[in-house]
Formats: sequence, C-alpha cells, structure tokens
Amino acid sequence: MHPAIDIAVVGATGTVGTALVEILEERDFPVGQLHLLASAASAGKSVPYKGRNLRIRTVEAFDFAQVRLVFFAAGEAVTRQYAPLVRSAGCALIDLSGGLPLQEAPRVVAEVNPQALEGLDAPCQLSSPASQAIALALVLAPLRSLMQWRRLCVTACLPVSSLGREGVAELARQTAELLNGRPPEPRLFDRQIAFNLLGRVGAVDAAGHAGLERRLAEELRQVLDAPELKVAATCAMAPVFFGDSLSLAVQAAQAIDLSAVRTALEQAAGVELIAPDDYPTVIGDAVGQDVAYVGRLRGGLDDACELNLWIASDNVRKGSALNAVQLAELLIKRGL
Amino acid sequence: MHPAIDIAVVGATGTVGTALVEILEERDFPVGQLHLLASAASAGKSVPYKGRNLRIRTVEAFDFAQVRLVFFAAGEAVTRQYAPLVRSAGCALIDLSGGLPLQEAPRVVAEVNPQALEGLDAPCQLSSPASQAIALALVLAPLRSLMQWRRLCVTACLPVSSLGREGVAELARQTAELLNGRPPEPRLFDRQIAFNLLGRVGAVDAAGHAGLERRLAEELRQVLDAPELKVAATCAMAPVFFGDSLSLAVQAAQAIDLSAVRTALEQAAGVELIAPDDYPTVIGDAVGQDVAYVGRLRGGLDDACELNLWIASDNVRKGSALNAVQLAELLIKRGL
Repeated sequence: MHPAIDIAVVGATGTVGTALVEILEERDFPVGQLHLLASAASAGKSVPYKGRNLRIRTVEAFDFAQVRLVFFAAGEAVTRQYAPLVRSAGCALIDLSGGLPLQEAPRVVAEVNPQALEGLDAPCQLSSPASQAIALALVLAPLRSLMQWRRLCVTACLPVSSLGREGVAELARQTAELLNGRPPEPRLFDRQIAFNLLGRVGAVDAAGHAGLERRLAEELRQVLDAPELKVAATCAMAPVFFGDSLSLAVQAAQAIDLSAVRTALEQAAGVELIAPDDYPTVIGDAVGQDVAYVGRLRGGLDDACELNLWIASDNVRKGSALNAVQLAELLIKRGL
Repeated sequence: MHPAIDIAVVGATGTVGTALVEILEERDFPVGQLHLLASAASAGKSVPYKGRNLRIRTVEAFDFAQVRLVFFAAGEAVTRQYAPLVRSAGCALIDLSGGLPLQEAPRVVAEVNPQALEGLDAPCQLSSPASQAIALALVLAPLRSLMQWRRLCVTACLPVSSLGREGVAELARQTAELLNGRPPEPRLFDRQIAFNLLGRVGAVDAAGHAGLERRLAEELRQVLDAPELKVAATCAMAPVFFGDSLSLAVQAAQAIDLSAVRTALEQAAGVELIAPDDYPTVIGDAVGQDVAYVGRLRGGLDDACELNLWIASDNVRKGSALNAVQLAELLIKRGL
C-alpha cells in the first residue's frame, strides 16, 4: 500500500471528472485530501466521494502547492491556462484534454506503453490520449508482433457525451422535439443531431482536417511507438449518448494470420474479443465497462494483407477517466 | 417523345417502390398501363399515380406478358423467383434488389456507365446498384481522369429505411420507448438500434463479410470499370431514418491535386459539392434530393496520394428509385 497523496481534480463536475472521482473510490486509490475544482459556474455544488459530499471549489482561487497530483478533466484551454501553475507548484499532472504538446506531456495508455514513464523527471506530466486513440491502441498493440503496419484507415463515430453533459442534453431535447412533431432547434451543434450523422467534429484547419483527427493520428503514433505509421482518420458525431464506435482497416506488410490475431486479442489486457457470430455495440456491451470491445474480425475482401475490425468502447470510463487513474497508479509506483 | 409502354412494378408498396411510382410521374415517363404488384399481404391497397389510385395486385397472379418492362423493388428472393418468368415473357427488367448476378444483369449508374447498355441484347436485364455504391460511383467517376486508384476504404452508415418501412417504424418505436423510460424491445434488429450503432448489417459469411459489403465492392468495380480496384468496405446501421452517410478514403498512385478534384466534382452530374467551410449531412442536405452531396474534401494527413471525403445521399431516391427510372429512360431510347 502506497502512502496517501493529496490530489486535485480540475473539471470535477463534468462527465469525465465525475467518473474519475468514482473510479478513484472504486479502485481504492490512496487519496489523502481530495480537492474538487471547477469553474465559478459550478462552485457550491458537491460531488459524492466515500460517503461524503465534497464541495466544489473554483479553480481560479486554488493553491496547487496543497497537492502533489492534479488531473485536468476540463477543456484544452483550462489545461493550458493552469498547467504552468501546477508545474511551478511542483505537482505531477495528468491531462485528459489533449491540451498539452506530445513532447511536454507524453501520451500513455496504461496497458500499452507504461515504459514511456521511464526516464521522465519527477514531477511527471502525462496525457491520457483521446478516447478513440485509447481504444485503437488497446486493440492494435497486441498485434504488433504479428504484423508490420503500413497504414490505418479509421472512421470514428463519436457519442454526444464527448461534448459533455450539454451534448447529452441536446440530443435528448432534439429527439423529444422531433417525436413531438416540433422542428428541433440546434444550439450546441450547428445543425440537427437527432437522427442525423455529422461528418465533422469541431472546426477544421486550412487543410480540412479536424483537430481531433490530427490528434488521433499523432497520439496513436506515439503510444504505439510507430512514428512512420500512416493514419487516415475521419471523426463523425452520431446520435448516440455514450460510447465510441470505430471502423478500422489495417494494411500490413504481410498476409494476415487471422487465427493468430484472434489469439492475441483473446489474451490482451483491456480488450474483449466478441465471438465471430456476434458483434460489439456501445449499448449492451461497451458502455459502463472497463475494456474496449472488438469484433467483426476479418481479412480484406481482396487483399490478404488487410485486417478489418469494429470496436465499441466507453468514451468516459476506459476512454478517459479509467486510463487517467491507471496512469496515476503508475506515477505513484515510481514516486510521482 | 417515345411511345408509351406498359410497365409492372414489383414491390410497389415499399419505400423504394412508392418513390419509384412518384418519380415515374414526376419525370413524365411514357407509361401506358401501370401495373403495381406486391405480395398477397398488400393486395387491395392502392397507390396514387397521376390523380388516380392504382390498386395493388398480387405478383403471384400476374401475367408478365401484359407488359414490356418490369421493375423489381422488393427483396432479392422475389427478384430471383420471378425474373425467369419475366425473361420468358420477353420483358425488359430493371432490378433494384441486387438479386441477380453481375454477369446476367449489369450494374449501371445512369451518369457513370450508360455505355454498359451497348451490345446488350433486347430485352435487357439491368440492375441498379446498392444505394451506397451509386453514391460512391457518382463521386468517384469524375475523378477517374485525375488519378489512378489503388484502393478504397469505405465505412457506410446506413439508415433504418434501408430495411424499408419496418426499419423506420422500429427506430421510432424504440426511441419513444426509451424517452418514456421503458426498455426498448428489439424486433426487426437483433438489439437496440435507438441511440446505438450496429457494426454489422445482415448476416456475414464464413470469412466475416456481410453480403452488402461484398456487393458494394463488386458493384463499384463493375460500374467504374475498374476490375483491379481494391475495396475495404464496412457497413453499419445508424439510428437515422433516411440517407446514407459514407466516409471514404481513396489511395491513388500519384499525389492528389485537390483543386482539380474540386473542379471535377463541381462540374459532375449527379453530385453537389459542399463548400470547404461546411459539410454535407443526410438531414438538411441529401434526403429528398436527386444528387449525392459530397464534402470534407481533404488530402491525407500524412500521404499526398490519399484523398478523404464524406458523402451524404438519399438512399431511396437517387440511391434506388431515381437511378432505376433513369435506367428505364436509357432502355426506352434504345427500344428496350
């Protein structure tokens, strides 16, 4: 048992922040004082932890010198604003927002590249990758010894909860409006999300790529230690509340041995392989679970060097909060 | 003006059959007698056509010698059962179900490969491809002269209407049950489709591929006259009522000239290119329209020879009924 440490969670009232506090409790993480922080809008609210209600405080007024580890579970901008304060207070930092450069805060998936922590100076800065990158890395890492990757082609269908509670509320509201015969009024999204699929998530750059599409490719290359890996990524928003659904095509340098792939995925940590006569979905399989579900394992239609898969994974737990807590467990082992 | 011909529509009460009858009227197709046929379950219903209500008759009792052209807009099994009767009655045939082999009934998209009709003996047998293949062919054909294709990677998110009225009813019912706090009861689908994404459409074969995935690849190769083209296809069912959403990555043999691609798509028939700061969706753009909407045009993240696109297309009109009527117009020009 490690000695308890004092911790702050920034963004503690959001979907991911709330899950993070739950998982700290579930896994009996050695927490000393737990400081739950959020913007002024959430101040005064409280969040349950070990039978008590912990009051939310504003991040603006917090002195990070009180803690040894800070989780950032709010937006990128919040991470960028407060990370320098955390650093100068000498705290370790785990970011869930993708707000820090890969060089400053390496992307780590606990089951895939824990060795990335070796050689880092304490206090460490780590990033938990985007939920889609975590799910893909969990499925791809066990295949590394079986094939040399040439290229990945990913289409990721995100749930509205990837935009937090507001996303969930908007899909529910628009759906109810439509079922009641009223035209749905888009607020958070730029158009109707109910019974629609939005083929763009967030703004795109001059080359036409969304930030998340670039992030997925960069994070996968870092986590899988495959700097040359080519990645085609398309992120879409689906009228689904929770769970990422990912369609993945892998091109390898050699013919795929499907039975070896099956065996590797059956034995892999953090992955549940679905039987060939079934397929994984977010509702019913992935949501609320701590592993990524993978199925529809098949070779290429016309290419022996291709592998196709379908992945369903909880975007809030395994895709965010759980991995962040697993990273904290790794940090504690090495003394932050 | 061509002389009017007598026509039968098999599956006239379905979503596609109804649209087909509407489009025959809209385009002032030279119809003599119009015979609307369906299974015994639909006999006695009627469908409006040019201000009259045409009574549905059973396909079992119909004498195809009464007509010169038959549309098959029911399932594959119905096409296979009745096509021999249609042939021996000397009628031309246009299948929308995919029930006939490519060699017997060539796949044709009116804007893409009308030349496929040359050299066919009358009476002709043609097939309108799967709606996803039509949308992809419309977008790819204008690019043929700009690049040599190596491989396509497609993820197609289908709407529930691809299973007809029962699919639409099931999504509506499950959604209402969930919004009313009741557990949704899956009937047509094997699990919850409301707020979920099903990464498999129909049964899969021993190699793990769904019939529609194989059909897409084969039809694209025939329509684009690209027998060597490699295609990775994944078909999923989305909680969307109408319209196909397609994520497409194209690998070419040479660097992509994006401005040439843009110009080609702007000038192409059957395609509407969305502005770079916008993106196409099924609701708001594609549904009810006669063209495939394409956007999110961009090069590869890390590969100059790659092109990425997002396509939204009406699965019932352009994807099925409209193309079938356009094929009939081509047949009439050449005397069936």
